[in-house]
Formats: sequence, C-alpha cells, structure tokens
Amino acid sequence: MKKALVVFSGGQDSSTCLYYALKNYDYVYTIGFAYGQRHSIEMKCRQEFIKALKNFDKELCKKLGPDRVVDMLSFKDLTDSALTKDSGSYELNDKNNLPTSFVPGRNLIFLSYAASYAYTIGADTIITGVGQADYSGYPDCRDETIKALEKALNLGMESNLKIETPLMFKDKAQTFKMAYDLGGRAFVDLIVRNTHTCYEGEHNVLHDWGYGCGICPSCLLRKKGYEEFKKLM
Amino acid sequence: MKKALVVFSGGQDSSTCLYYALKNYDYVYTIGFAYGQRHSIEMKCRQEFIKALKNFDKELCKKLGPDRVVDMLSFKDLTDSALTKDSGSYELNDKNNLPTSFVPGRNLIFLSYAASYAYTIGADTIITGVGQADYSGYPDCRDETIKALEKALNLGMESNLKIETPLMFKDKAQTFKMAYDLGGRAFVDLIVRNTHTCYEGEHNVLHDWGYGCGICPSCLLRKKGYEEFKKLM
Repeated sequence: MKKALVVFSGGQDSSTCLYYALKNYDYVYTIGFAYGQRHSIEMKCRQEFIKALKNFDKELCKKLGPDRVVDMLSFKDLTDSALTKDSGSYELNDKNNLPTSFVPGRNLIFLSYAASYAYTIGADTIITGVGQADYSGYPDCRDETIKALEKALNLGMESNLKIETPLMFKDKAQTFKMAYDLGGRAFVDLIVRNTHTCYEGEHNVLHDWGYGCGICPSCLLRKKGYEEFKKLM
Repeated sequence: MKKALVVFSGGQDSSTCLYYALKNYDYVYTIGFAYGQRHSIEMKCRQEFIKALKNFDKELCKKLGPDRVVDMLSFKDLTDSALTKDSGSYELNDKNNLPTSFVPGRNLIFLSYAASYAYTIGADTIITGVGQADYSGYPDCRDETIKALEKALNLGMESNLKIETPLMFKDKAQTFKMAYDLGGRAFVDLIVRNTHTCYEGEHNVLHDWGYGCGICPSCLLRKKGYEEFKKLM
C-alpha cells in the first residue's frame, strides 16, 4: 500500500501533481497552508478543484483521503513579502536580489509540516509541485534545497520519507503537457478552468490559459507556458 | 552588530541560552511556539522568566528585543503525541521505538519558522537549547540533524545563518553549571524558581531543583542534574 501526501495549493502545478499522485499511488492525502495569502481565492480554489476532480474521475478519486489545511496565519506577521502584504510590487529586493514576492523559508516550513503529518499518517512519500525550470528566483524550490531538507527531515524523524518533485525540471509548457499525458485535453481544460495561480487574486475573466490578471509574473509564466504547449500539440 | 534569535520556551535549557545570548551578542530577539502544549503554564513561564531576568540584570536586558510567539495550534491536530494529547504515558511507542512524547518533526518546524524570522529581522544566528547528552530519544535534537537542517535552510533562503547549540553536549548538571558560570548562584536560583520543565504542567510545589511533579521523565532529569550539580560545587 503506497501512501502519498500531496502539498496542494490549488494552483496549476500542485493540481497536476495531485492527479499524478492518484495515478501512481494507492492512497493519496492532501495538505494545504493558510499562511495569510493576500487573496483567499487560493484557498477556495483548492476545494473547488478537488470537487471538480471527483466529477472528472470518480473512480480514481476513491483513492483520495482527507484534505487538511494547516493554519499558518501568524506566519504573515513574522515575515514581510509581496505575497503576504499589500506592497503590490514584484521587483527585486535591493537587499538580497531576490524577488520581493519571496517569503523567506516558506516552502521549508510547508515541507516540515508535511513531513510531520506524513509521519503521523504513515505516508512514505511527499509530493510537491515546486520546480526550478521556470526559475522565479525562489531558492527554496531548487532541487538541491529539497534534497538537503529531505535529509534533515529524515534524520530528525528517524524516517525514510521521500520528497518527490515531478515538476522539478519542467517549465509551464511541459507541465501543461504532463497534464495532457495524464488525462488528455479534458484534464488540461480542468486545470485551465479550476486552478488559480495569479498573484493578484484576479479570478473573474477566463482566458484560454486560465483565470488571472494576465500581467503579474505568475500569470505571464502561465500564459507563455500555455502558448508554448499549444504549439507542441 | 551581532544579532541573535533565541528559540525560547521558558524551560531550563532555553532560559540558560537566553542569558548566554545576552552575554555574547549585541542584540537578542526571542521566539516561542504555541503548539497545543497540554499545559499553558509553559507559555506563562516564558513571560515571567523574561520579567524576572529584567529585574535580575537590567543593564544586560537593554539588549533584549521583542518577544514573538508563533501560533502553531493547528499542529496538534496533525500529529498525535503524549505532549500534545492527554494520553498521560511516556513509554516507548511500539511502532518506532521512540518515546510517545516525541512530536514528529516538531523541532524542525520550530527552527524553520525561526530561520524565516531571523532572515526578516537580519539576525545571523539562531540559538537553541536542544541537546543530545541527556538523550531523551528525540532525533530532531541531535547535532547531525541540526547541521543538516542548517544546510537546508541556508540553501533555501540563500542565507548564511548559523544555528548555535550551546547545550548540545551538556547534560542537565552541566547546564546548571553553565548557568552558574554565566551569573553565579543568583542566576541558578532564577533558573530554579522561574523556569518550567515538567511534562505534567505541575507548578505548585517548589523543590530545590525547581517546580514539577518530580516523577515525569523531564522532572527526573532535572532533579538528577541538580543533585549532580550540587556535588560539583
């Protein structure tokens, strides 16, 4: 019995990973983090994607375990970043040359919580959609970081947990292609219509690549990726 | 300007570390975690120790920055352990041969939060009172784990943060001795009277080694340590 825990945010990447997990594991749990996102739309989309996925593939979703959301709201008081505050700018920070949307160590905390939960429920794999191909300047998403953290977590829990990163070296076009390979055009449509990636929390206008403002770094990546994906098909 | 962030729980170890930090750094912040301890006395003692320390050494405490408590209450729902639930037993867990008081990965999450906060406030050292001498079976307190986590955190934040563990190889007697070396008999008395270590949250009877039930593993260690310390003097 192979149990996986998917770090699931309701965005394109983790939603693709969730379906990947259902295809490759016997039992799949999900975990999310409410850490003071500027836009609660992200949390809402998590639930809606799961609902839509259950409609899309009822049989496979029988493997789906409970969804857990960890309250990390006090995190936003600890750190300052464009993603948790209303600074509205995505430029590079003078201090460290990292994007101002970089929340220091955010992903490390997510994965530490996930590891703790995985240990408790007896899952031996954590799946996360982080990657270093569409490089946004987040050092906590790099392969080297994830491998170092995997080692630290296993030493700290005397465990043999694996952190699987199916998208580590895929750009957004390849991630759309992966969705296509997993569930055809219909699953790509599900991703387009039922996931949220926009930093601005814009979720009113549906473009062919999905909802979003179309101008924040996250929308630009997704839009460009979708256009490249269409050329591949 | 050397800034340190002390992971401070209000227990003997981290309280000793706090005074150590004040003696060795120019500016000292403190961070604590409310993670669903069975006994809120631990959180109360944090505040009281800081107040008592300010009375004890007014001059040195001018270096003391704000104290932050991170709300991790949802953590208790994720994991099951004697320290967060009312199971009341401290035996070894059949499943993994670790004490039932082991909260999987707890210390890894604490340190990840601390790193994130240290990054934000510009502290380049985190000080934590964990140790492997009085070995309670917690793998997340071992030197090897801390060093691996330090590496992962620095990769993930592109930082050069140091995790300092002044008590890593000290048993409780040596920790009392360290308190004595830092601030004499008067500081040992402060530690005895103003810190809390007991798993049971017992804080009514003051023994010569401190408050506590006297029979939980944590009290037994502290009591034995104090008796050995007295012989050293």
